[in-house]
Amino acid sequence: MTDGAVAVSPHPAGVPTDLMSLSYEPLTPTSFLDRAAATHGDRVAVVDGEQRFTYTELHERCRKLAGGLAAIHAGRPVAVLVPNTHVGLEATYAVPWSGVPLVAVNTRLAAGEVAYILEHSNASVLVHDPVFDDLVADALGRLEAPPQTVRVGDDYERLITWGEPTAVIPDDERALLSINYTSGTTGSPKGVMYHHRGAYLQALAMVGHTGLSPSSVHLWTLPMFHCNGWCFPWAVTAAAATHVCLPKVEPARIWELVRDHGVTHLNGAPTVLSMIAYAPEAGPVTTKVRVATGGAPPSPAILRRMAELGFEVTHLYGLTETFGPAMICDWRPEWNDLDGGTQARMKARQGVGNMIAQAVRVIIDDGADAPADGLTTGQIALRGNNVMLGYLHDEQATRDAAPDGWFRTGDIGVMHPDGYVELRDRSKDVIISGGENIASVEVEQAIADHPAVLEVAVIAIPDERWGEVPAAYVTLRDGATASEEEIVEHVRSRLARFKAPKRVVFTDLPRTSTGKIQKFVLRDAAWAGQERRIR
Amino acid sequence: MTDGAVAVSPHPAGVPTDLMSLSYEPLTPTSFLDRAAATHGDRVAVVDGEQRFTYTELHERCRKLAGGLAAIHAGRPVAVLVPNTHVGLEATYAVPWSGVPLVAVNTRLAAGEVAYILEHSNASVLVHDPVFDDLVADALGRLEAPPQTVRVGDDYERLITWGEPTAVIPDDERALLSINYTSGTTGSPKGVMYHHRGAYLQALAMVGHTGLSPSSVHLWTLPMFHCNGWCFPWAVTAAAATHVCLPKVEPARIWELVRDHGVTHLNGAPTVLSMIAYAPEAGPVTTKVRVATGGAPPSPAILRRMAELGFEVTHLYGLTETFGPAMICDWRPEWNDLDGGTQARMKARQGVGNMIAQAVRVIIDDGADAPADGLTTGQIALRGNNVMLGYLHDEQATRDAAPDGWFRTGDIGVMHPDGYVELRDRSKDVIISGGENIASVEVEQAIADHPAVLEVAVIAIPDERWGEVPAAYVTLRDGATASEEEIVEHVRSRLARFKAPKRVVFTDLPRTSTGKIQKFVLRDAAWAGQERRIR
Repeated sequence: MTDGAVAVSPHPAGVPTDLMSLSYEPLTPTSFLDRAAATHGDRVAVVDGEQRFTYTELHERCRKLAGGLAAIHAGRPVAVLVPNTHVGLEATYAVPWSGVPLVAVNTRLAAGEVAYILEHSNASVLVHDPVFDDLVADALGRLEAPPQTVRVGDDYERLITWGEPTAVIPDDERALLSINYTSGTTGSPKGVMYHHRGAYLQALAMVGHTGLSPSSVHLWTLPMFHCNGWCFPWAVTAAAATHVCLPKVEPARIWELVRDHGVTHLNGAPTVLSMIAYAPEAGPVTTKVRVATGGAPPSPAILRRMAELGFEVTHLYGLTETFGPAMICDWRPEWNDLDGGTQARMKARQGVGNMIAQAVRVIIDDGADAPADGLTTGQIALRGNNVMLGYLHDEQATRDAAPDGWFRTGDIGVMHPDGYVELRDRSKDVIISGGENIASVEVEQAIADHPAVLEVAVIAIPDERWGEVPAAYVTLRDGATASEEEIVEHVRSRLARFKAPKRVVFTDLPRTSTGKIQKFVLRDAAWAGQERRIR
Repeated sequence: MTDGAVAVSPHPAGVPTDLMSLSYEPLTPTSFLDRAAATHGDRVAVVDGEQRFTYTELHERCRKLAGGLAAIHAGRPVAVLVPNTHVGLEATYAVPWSGVPLVAVNTRLAAGEVAYILEHSNASVLVHDPVFDDLVADALGRLEAPPQTVRVGDDYERLITWGEPTAVIPDDERALLSINYTSGTTGSPKGVMYHHRGAYLQALAMVGHTGLSPSSVHLWTLPMFHCNGWCFPWAVTAAAATHVCLPKVEPARIWELVRDHGVTHLNGAPTVLSMIAYAPEAGPVTTKVRVATGGAPPSPAILRRMAELGFEVTHLYGLTETFGPAMICDWRPEWNDLDGGTQARMKARQGVGNMIAQAVRVIIDDGADAPADGLTTGQIALRGNNVMLGYLHDEQATRDAAPDGWFRTGDIGVMHPDGYVELRDRSKDVIISGGENIASVEVEQAIADHPAVLEVAVIAIPDERWGEVPAAYVTLRDGATASEEEIVEHVRSRLARFKAPKRVVFTDLPRTSTGKIQKFVLRDAAWAGQERRIR
């Protein structure tokens, strides 16, 4: 703008401040429940076993739960440790409305890990399901100042009955909404800080890309503690669709729910898709089911099988740091004419930024963009409204992750000439097993802690069911002994069970001339002969 | 939040300012074209007659046009007067990127009205199609300081060739994006100020509610000058779908384009739907076409006919002040089981706030909400992110329209028990003819200007084709004479042709005891026997 154009300046300076509120409401994903209650209040919001809640009921329960929590949380975060039940959904609304961030804890973690997260997040309240009573007791026993617990059942319902309806909306739409812990490259999980604005926009992108509508029925096969369920607790509600809860991923139960409730949408890692597709109960569905998958590329075989059953699979890509799926393999109509094999190869690409994301970059070593030649590898980098605020209490890690304002995913990929990104490797030492992240270093530290171990390297090895699993290569101290079972048990006593190595090899480790362990030598041997390999 | 919780306060105070940009990008609908070019660059963005532009080409043209415009607009708005061609689309990106607001002028207006808008908006440049050469010459002849003209064709292409690629993004996402003139209750059109944030969010809501995807093909049956085409220039691009231009609403051409290009989406007033449905070329389509209609409720007959042809109609409601459709008759799956007549009645309701809108209110006289009983009438009121900043240079009108921070639509409706709103009447004296707003008072003023006229009242009367049309009830001065044709011609010389009365009745006007003209008496007579009547 040049001078002398005040009256029609692009900045609405001419609008009096008191009138600006007419056209402004802070973006928060909790508003989707307000809308659903106002517009679809009498329709079923949640199916959870025999329980049903309408949107009016869900709204009321969340507002009262918010009031109950506000009375006890003392301004500190509220953590939840629950399976995919109505409680997980209610927490995504009630905890923010109570005025504090939500910490949804991965239910597969070990007690020590849960204790770490509760302490690190400074949680004052832990809402937990009775199925985790033992885990909670163990975790809380490790803390000097354990949070107050609210046990799902009587405790929880009492809090709802007792709470005054409350809905705190932050003035700043970039206020802290939730803290999601992720295993990264370091040993301790990092607390990824989500903001209201990002979750709101990400939810709208999910609605747009998956075609959610009031006629949709979403089955909760994806854990709600994963990136707040990829923002689907908010997206499904934005569309006023129905949530169908699934406390455990059991194929027979999934097929029962798909058929009984006319499920139209579900999400999950390729491992979950395999369980569904190859279950004895599997059979073609009458209404198309839209499936979003991520964590690893879906194989041609699973894509073919899912298509036969009437499931349309979309491949997404993202990280905890990006509110879940920041990228989508956006299907192009012209690809419908390709042969099945080529279609599968197209669908295995991670794709493009989603509709609210900034354009994805593939950054080579000098900070420039890799040419879009499908060959030159670089690190996939993201920024924009669906990127985290940072890591809680770890400014340095945040800076390291975004050295130039672009968040480095740690994944190595190429940019194809059509603008689609495909992963080639991971630079961070992360193993993704059945959709769960495992930091190699975390497992290495646990094993190195064993008195018989001199040194250790943990890598991913291929696994038919989980895609990949951790394997440990261990050198024992002179004269010391340890069995494979002993090492595995040692890890299990410290970390979540899924992080324990599925194989332990006692060996000397390959090294560079300067003594650095050469993991790639181990990997090359382990993955020889595998067709697809993102390592 | 209580004190002592700084580290995990919901406000991300702990995040250093320089890191906040990682997770923030100002919302602007122009970013959707950046994304489409980066992610679907080689695909067809625009079909306009024989012309085709890919998203890469469209992006480049808009950036260069922005540079060309920036060199000549001197920081003042750029107006466009074009049919639904690629130029109209390009303007929705290029003008904001040039750093000034867009003024898309209704092409059906008379020269005096165009001149008024150019002057009122302080436009420095007018981009116009050669089909409007005469209109532009006439309009500009009325101005002391006419804007510079850019004639589509050589002029326009030269500006693109010559322009440096430019894309100004406002720091403030609530900056002024466009000014859309509307006929309201007063004689002069009012300039409705759109902001970037509102258009961005509204576009996402349109994607979500109409299911736009990269496989979609959108036919431009709705004028782009209407509320910036209900934000579809941005929504269609956000989905990376294809725009098919339609300079003139000709049924034969529409059917040709629908069939040749596999159109999946189009928008328009019920009048336009009728033209399509009853054209000689009409016949069932092989791929479902999703139609959004507004301006008046679609009739049961048209809904039945469209369904037979394979068109799925969604009824939307909004105003220029609300970026187009702020409300949607969100279809509920349980309504699929209703009989056709009941379905049509459901679909004729204006519905609920769209997914980014705040909950709609129906406000009774004392400022309270009407009970949701389907009976109590009140004024429909809206606020939130898809509401205008205000009327340009008319703070008082803005205040009058939103006396308590809720924008009064001027329309009278009821709230049904299920949360859906249905219009019953209009409190503002607006005639909606074929989707175009006509202010009664504007027509009355034009007629009163005739030397033979003593007084006049203009109301809407039913019309099979246009839904409603203006009719004038005129009392002549003692001894004066004037014919119906003379009055009509008199109006046409001052206002757009569609605003001229379709009938002129010379009569005494009904009055209250205090002498006020009783328009409702005229209306009751004119609408007697009509089944549906929103007046």
